[in-house]
Amino acid sequence: MKIALDAMGGDHAPTVTVEGGIWAARDFNVTVVLVGPEERIREEMAKHNTQGASIEIVHAPEWIRMDEHPATSVRAKPRNTMSVALEMVKQGEVDAFVTCGHTGAALAASLFTLGRIRGIKRPALTTVFPALHGSFLILDIGANADCKPEYLRQFAMMGSVYAEHVFGIRHPKVGILSIGEEGGKGNALVQDTYPLLEEALGERFIGNVEPKEALRGDVDVVVTDGFTGNIFVKTAEAVADMLMRVMKEEIKRRPLAVAGALLAKPAFKATGERLDPREYGGAPLLGVDGIVIVGHGRSDAYAVRNAVRMGIRAVDGDIVRRIREGLTNL
Amino acid sequence: MKIALDAMGGDHAPTVTVEGGIWAARDFNVTVVLVGPEERIREEMAKHNTQGASIEIVHAPEWIRMDEHPATSVRAKPRNTMSVALEMVKQGEVDAFVTCGHTGAALAASLFTLGRIRGIKRPALTTVFPALHGSFLILDIGANADCKPEYLRQFAMMGSVYAEHVFGIRHPKVGILSIGEEGGKGNALVQDTYPLLEEALGERFIGNVEPKEALRGDVDVVVTDGFTGNIFVKTAEAVADMLMRVMKEEIKRRPLAVAGALLAKPAFKATGERLDPREYGGAPLLGVDGIVIVGHGRSDAYAVRNAVRMGIRAVDGDIVRRIREGLTNL
Repeated sequence: MKIALDAMGGDHAPTVTVEGGIWAARDFNVTVVLVGPEERIREEMAKHNTQGASIEIVHAPEWIRMDEHPATSVRAKPRNTMSVALEMVKQGEVDAFVTCGHTGAALAASLFTLGRIRGIKRPALTTVFPALHGSFLILDIGANADCKPEYLRQFAMMGSVYAEHVFGIRHPKVGILSIGEEGGKGNALVQDTYPLLEEALGERFIGNVEPKEALRGDVDVVVTDGFTGNIFVKTAEAVADMLMRVMKEEIKRRPLAVAGALLAKPAFKATGERLDPREYGGAPLLGVDGIVIVGHGRSDAYAVRNAVRMGIRAVDGDIVRRIREGLTNL
Repeated sequence: MKIALDAMGGDHAPTVTVEGGIWAARDFNVTVVLVGPEERIREEMAKHNTQGASIEIVHAPEWIRMDEHPATSVRAKPRNTMSVALEMVKQGEVDAFVTCGHTGAALAASLFTLGRIRGIKRPALTTVFPALHGSFLILDIGANADCKPEYLRQFAMMGSVYAEHVFGIRHPKVGILSIGEEGGKGNALVQDTYPLLEEALGERFIGNVEPKEALRGDVDVVVTDGFTGNIFVKTAEAVADMLMRVMKEEIKRRPLAVAGALLAKPAFKATGERLDPREYGGAPLLGVDGIVIVGHGRSDAYAVRNAVRMGIRAVDGDIVRRIREGLTNL
């Protein structure tokens, strides 16, 4: 298996991407194709022992920075790492593309180069989100701010297929994010989508879920429109960040608490790790005609390694074919 | 000034409501009218020294429980505490109504008894939310799952008026909750509302705000539809709850961390207090034709006292008249 990895994607690229790519190639016994400026990649590789790691380099002289406009920059830089790698996916030269770069650019480049799976109305951005017990896949988290019930029906199918064939959950539980547990609660979109999901998913559909149920781990796939999904994810991140900051401030004010916090540090660290999205490595763009995994921009080498692993699992799960089958069943 | 207080509202009523009511009457030098079953109120009052507290009792034999359907139960129990108190607001016998009971029932009862302020399309549920620095008012958080730009324009005006005349912020900063900071980002509702808010609020309108900006304290009033607002509030609560649970679990696994957590306990407690919505006491139903403050269901006596204080401030701010003025200016 060959996985193309965006050498310039993420806040700490190419240092962590090259390290994570070598790590993944060795741990998972696949070929990792590092796509980016050849000289910079070679410089980074020189720092590591690549013995036993199958690595290839494909030169791409340009890349998309995190602060650039997605569609505009992808168009303006035809030889950017993402577009070059995606062309290889399209030509069947690699099995999947993994990036920790700009999510919007990855989506735009995927749509330009791969297009949508025939029959899919809209692609969805997804993320794997930590819950008290386990985790869940949530989609859409920002590709489509305004959605129709039909889009959400396809998101539900794609999420369900992914949970089954990549996460290995035999009967994934799928819910729609809403503001009351009972059917009939929610906005017009939720109410109109509800019967479609009942019909399409049967027993897999567990109905409306509120944020607390999702975060408790009651559900495997959470379906929502891209606006609400993005607010959910960003609120969760911002609240966790605020809580930790306030706690640090209050600890610093009290010398005894500072001593206590030192003793409790391993527990704080474990908490951070349990809730850190980097542990999951990455999440798919669903609905584009190829396997594309987007990892967190803040990824370290370990997270990059895990993102590559997610790509491998998606290839093993034959996810594009499964989505095509799912479409004919809808 | 006379404030009607729902003696049966909240998880710990009437114990904490009677205690908080006496406390507020004494601290703020107003008359608190306890509305509820007279005998139960007298039993609770007997436990306290009411010297120096101006307390009246108005008998209401029924009340709405937290798990009841709002509109149905309000209709089925015409002599419930909320409806009795709101009738007193309507007749001018009290200046405001404060409850820590069922928010939906308070809204339904307010609409039945007081109705909307003439010209207001939809009333809004609000809450005062803690930020890293200060706090902000967010509305709507659940009264209207589907909104039109015109509703959001009125929410913005009402929130701005409240922030100015109750919180005493001379030039409140008003933002619309969205998924990108630039204007033009967001869903169709946000995009259609944006120019209306620019026109209606002028310099008070600071544009789109993302969750992290709101939670940092960059804004005084956050405007959103009731679906998104409810998801925001419930996600924030659920994430904070999950984070604390995971941290407790991880601490309990490590004896040293348990000792450390004991030393750091005052810092944890201070964190909880800074972020606890009960500190703010309550938030208004905006758009109904009278002053109605809804406190948190989990309120203790101190929170009840603070909710009464919020009612007093809303009366002092002459908030219903200010909203009427705001409507003519729109």
